[in-house]
Amino acid sequence: MATVFGMSASGNCYKIKLLLEMLDAPYAWREVDVLNGGSRAPEFLAMNPNGKVPVLEIGPGQYLPESNAILVYLAEETPFWPQDKFARAQVLQWMFFEQYSHEPYIAVARFIKKFLPADHVRQQEIPRLLERGYQALDVMEKQLTGREWLVGGEMTIADIALYAYTHDAAAGGFDLSRYPAISAWLQRVTVRPGYVVQ
Amino acid sequence: MATVFGMSASGNCYKIKLLLEMLDAPYAWREVDVLNGGSRAPEFLAMNPNGKVPVLEIGPGQYLPESNAILVYLAEETPFWPQDKFARAQVLQWMFFEQYSHEPYIAVARFIKKFLPADHVRQQEIPRLLERGYQALDVMEKQLTGREWLVGGEMTIADIALYAYTHDAAAGGFDLSRYPAISAWLQRVTVRPGYVVQ
Repeated sequence: MATVFGMSASGNCYKIKLLLEMLDAPYAWREVDVLNGGSRAPEFLAMNPNGKVPVLEIGPGQYLPESNAILVYLAEETPFWPQDKFARAQVLQWMFFEQYSHEPYIAVARFIKKFLPADHVRQQEIPRLLERGYQALDVMEKQLTGREWLVGGEMTIADIALYAYTHDAAAGGFDLSRYPAISAWLQRVTVRPGYVVQ
Repeated sequence: MATVFGMSASGNCYKIKLLLEMLDAPYAWREVDVLNGGSRAPEFLAMNPNGKVPVLEIGPGQYLPESNAILVYLAEETPFWPQDKFARAQVLQWMFFEQYSHEPYIAVARFIKKFLPADHVRQQEIPRLLERGYQALDVMEKQLTGREWLVGGEMTIADIALYAYTHDAAAGGFDLSRYPAISAWLQRVTVRPGYVVQ
């Protein structure tokens, strides 16, 4: 049985929980107190020298960091990972988009507004984060217009990866009412078997 | 035959060229003038609404953005993509590490120092980029100490993804002489069949 080392408040960790629940797969969850140094402790760095959650423990001494790599590992041989080669590449395309063009803006704006004091110096980052985050949402809206899911006709781990922070984008100051296709897609995820709130 | 839409000076585009050359695969290269708006032109945005190079044209109307998704697409069924499931996940782990914890610091420092004037406002970002970039290099040095390649015993696309900007990190102000394992690994890449300079 796999063990997830994660922080419940993190969207990157929620991805893993959401997929495991939708797969109805058994797993153990070990909460890591990231805000108080839990991911910089020596025993954590021994699992992931990069000091980030989540980490999946697959077997003794077998640790896999990086949320989207974990999603691929868990989704192989399930309907969340397409059989077609080009579709698989497109799923990865959206997952790299998520980590490079979406998460650094939408997740960081959410972190600053949700977890830091209103007078914290990092609040000055918000205008730029909103600008870049809206660019990412524009790209998603275009892709989701006229489609149910990001790739092909079925829900894949690309949807899970992008759901994780998009669903809570309002906490970062984003107005999702501008995005009808994204809003319908968010709703579509919540009615899938195994869906759990963060 | 695949066509790569890329900018030669970009490490993300160099990744694709390096893999195709090492695979001895036929391809066409179409240079995109990113610095003069080439990736924001309507015909480019029709291929990739996110407005970033590289894009791989696989067939008529089949466009694949995101450098690391392209690497996976091209490497499947070659020795650069492991057969073992856990090893594949580790290759993806290092590719997501590259896009999230490495490229935004090492590539951006290189861009600012190599392409922007010495009095440009973005020069003030350099100290933070160096700090974070050195953290990424520390993680790589730890992984490469006692190993020839990042994952398993063979060169994979994880090595190609991380070679692309690491080999030119000095242009961003990084001192690679601190990193003997990284330096030996960089050298190891250059003697592989098909290696081409950027």
